[in-house]
Amino acid sequence: MLEMRLDRPGSDAVAQALIELAATFGDRLACSLAVREQHANTTTWVAGEPPDAVVFPRSTEDVQQVFRICARHCIPLIPYGTGTSFEGHVNAPFGGVSVDLKDMNRVLAVHAEDFDCVVEPGTTRNQLNAHLRDLGLFFPVDPGADTALGGMASTRASGTTAVRYGTMRDNVLALKVVLPSGELMTTSRRARKSSAGYDLTRLIVGAEGTLGIITELILKLHGIPEAVSAGVCRLPSVQACCDVAIAAIQSGIAVARIELLDEMQVRVCNAYSKLAMPEQPTLFLEFHGSEAGVVEQAERFGASAAEFGADGFDWAHESEARTRLWQTRHDVFWALRSYRAGAKVVVTDACVPISRLAACVAATKDDIEASGLVAPIVGHVGDGNFHASVLVMMEDPDEVARATALIDRIAERALAMEGTCTGEHGIGEGKRHLLVPEHGEATVGAMRAIKLALDPKGIMNPGNIV
Amino acid sequence: MLEMRLDRPGSDAVAQALIELAATFGDRLACSLAVREQHANTTTWVAGEPPDAVVFPRSTEDVQQVFRICARHCIPLIPYGTGTSFEGHVNAPFGGVSVDLKDMNRVLAVHAEDFDCVVEPGTTRNQLNAHLRDLGLFFPVDPGADTALGGMASTRASGTTAVRYGTMRDNVLALKVVLPSGELMTTSRRARKSSAGYDLTRLIVGAEGTLGIITELILKLHGIPEAVSAGVCRLPSVQACCDVAIAAIQSGIAVARIELLDEMQVRVCNAYSKLAMPEQPTLFLEFHGSEAGVVEQAERFGASAAEFGADGFDWAHESEARTRLWQTRHDVFWALRSYRAGAKVVVTDACVPISRLAACVAATKDDIEASGLVAPIVGHVGDGNFHASVLVMMEDPDEVARATALIDRIAERALAMEGTCTGEHGIGEGKRHLLVPEHGEATVGAMRAIKLALDPKGIMNPGNIV
Repeated sequence: MLEMRLDRPGSDAVAQALIELAATFGDRLACSLAVREQHANTTTWVAGEPPDAVVFPRSTEDVQQVFRICARHCIPLIPYGTGTSFEGHVNAPFGGVSVDLKDMNRVLAVHAEDFDCVVEPGTTRNQLNAHLRDLGLFFPVDPGADTALGGMASTRASGTTAVRYGTMRDNVLALKVVLPSGELMTTSRRARKSSAGYDLTRLIVGAEGTLGIITELILKLHGIPEAVSAGVCRLPSVQACCDVAIAAIQSGIAVARIELLDEMQVRVCNAYSKLAMPEQPTLFLEFHGSEAGVVEQAERFGASAAEFGADGFDWAHESEARTRLWQTRHDVFWALRSYRAGAKVVVTDACVPISRLAACVAATKDDIEASGLVAPIVGHVGDGNFHASVLVMMEDPDEVARATALIDRIAERALAMEGTCTGEHGIGEGKRHLLVPEHGEATVGAMRAIKLALDPKGIMNPGNIV
Repeated sequence: MLEMRLDRPGSDAVAQALIELAATFGDRLACSLAVREQHANTTTWVAGEPPDAVVFPRSTEDVQQVFRICARHCIPLIPYGTGTSFEGHVNAPFGGVSVDLKDMNRVLAVHAEDFDCVVEPGTTRNQLNAHLRDLGLFFPVDPGADTALGGMASTRASGTTAVRYGTMRDNVLALKVVLPSGELMTTSRRARKSSAGYDLTRLIVGAEGTLGIITELILKLHGIPEAVSAGVCRLPSVQACCDVAIAAIQSGIAVARIELLDEMQVRVCNAYSKLAMPEQPTLFLEFHGSEAGVVEQAERFGASAAEFGADGFDWAHESEARTRLWQTRHDVFWALRSYRAGAKVVVTDACVPISRLAACVAATKDDIEASGLVAPIVGHVGDGNFHASVLVMMEDPDEVARATALIDRIAERALAMEGTCTGEHGIGEGKRHLLVPEHGEATVGAMRAIKLALDPKGIMNPGNIV
């Protein structure tokens, strides 16, 4: 079996590389402990592993320059966007240089007539959408936080709107990528489809920075829908919420968002967002379309939900009420953080075929209860994807052990149900041990062969995936 | 630069491999010239290059057995579905064994509640859709011919419905692939989305059999729409047809199909399908949705088309009329074949950003006129993709030279307009010289590195892509 190189470069090599980087980048190279620790501070329970330095490139040429210097000395490179990954992707377990792309945040072009745009990787999704608003266009992928689009591509992110608009896999048309050799690769062109050779766009999307650094993205855009209707629907059980979602998907109701919050999560949101939602399993919904279409979809949905015991809807027809609703949903992670002072929030990411979803969530709730832990559930239930967020006191070894067992069990159940251990967060450091159980040796062997072929020195974000 | 091995195996090696294959497969190994030539008979002007033998596996284990024998002797393997490729994909330029998958044509499972199914690669799309009809489900990708689903995945096929349902890239959930080592790789699971490692599904989709042989596909299914409405709309010019399509896409009208036929193509179809359509640039259209939704979409489309000078519609409300309409469209290739007796039909495949489509088609029509050749145009204009089908007498060197120049010019223009030389047919042998002009050296270098990593002996469908 092929093996990855996983040793730390010698201190001489690091020192030499830093001298060369400093000569090129001046005060755009930071070596202070504070900045380095900031760049390992991930929203996960994986311990922070700071890089040896952080560099702030401003252009593709800058990134190529960083690669050339680091490749010469075999120094690892860790791409950094907004640091919002859940699986330790920005950690530097073998040291090296964090490449912070925050200064590469320009929207380079918008082709409104072609529904695409060209952005740098540090551009965040809110920044892009603010830029697009007056054109009647938007970029739909919405993982909650205001994340960098390069990072979203690298983790194959999705979120609340994937049920309607797809994930990053579906919404990236092409990429510019600096390869470990320092060469610049353009994966595809602006045509909507192509059969010209291997799909390197999709290979880089989800590669978690292990094959190169994205320095430009061509993204698909969508027209802001003529009408948007949103609302909240409460049901007697989490199972009923899943059943309603399944029925909606199966009957072809085009929901744009369908998000589950269990009763515990509603309590957490009430506390953080100062709301008084009844503490019941709840669906947050949104429909996009024409004025007539949205009404038709919502009515069909309402009729279906009533059959599962929904006790009416609170429709948020006004744009302001909708904003409040989705702000509450987007704040879930921060609400969890503040709910139990001092606890780490460990977000699981099971995704199963939708026919298994209700059983999977119900069994997970039983596990949570048996564990004695606090672990509210939210879910992109239209995709069969849900997150139990385990609140863990890291000082309590018994609690950490119970949390570890619970988190492993959730992943194992997803695999047993023909699902995946990660619907949208990626493997990173945190889920590397699950890659072979999920895919098998032959598949992981092929991934390793590709990694070695494109990054023979193993300098690109080592410690992630393979 | 990495180089592929491209030499023919010695005759001893071939003889030894054939003896071993015969011992294992008996009369499921064919060596007659007739069968071998059949398996090189591609619907293209690339000259036929027959394999040394054809084997007919019945299972994944059979395919693995073929791999083990052929890998041992470094014998090329050429996967064969229905032989409908346009770019010489099933040719054997270095000899070897054609692996005909026609006996692996079972629908292994349909998960109606999850909108997916599991099929063997020799299953054709019509066969699958017949199987699904009673369940209210269908598989949407429709390249015209009744092609094998394994071949459709391998060429990243699309066709008339991609504008609404996407291409094979979007509709394959997971694959089983026998790798050149003989190992079996499962690329993903039945969950709708996953971030677990490199996207090997998308790497194999479009790899044209150069990285392994697909032995099982999990495909996404869709609900048969409640209502379908189709029709024909004539416009004063090809430019106006493109403008109507662009306006429809840009205003968010959810066309399920929007197909251009230029006046020459209408004439060809009239002759073959015994119709009397006015010989004018024409759009074939289809809308899918609820009863109310289809009417709304069609009315909005009609209003928009009228602004571009459409002289009314012939709506095909009855299922029978719709079948006749799309049969006519599907018969285009055969209509072209019979239009000019003895001519080869060479189908080009430019795809450009939709804002460039009208200009691209108009310039192509000028080129066709200047060339003096017969080359009717059809187009999946909602995707920016169109085919000029050049009818060429291969005995006439002057005509062949003019055709070559025209075909090259069409590809060059697509590239100059930020498009691709192949929207849906693949690179094969026919377009290999266009891969570097399309992607650049760094990208093609990465493709070569991946090919070498997964197929170090270069036995998988050599002569295609890289």
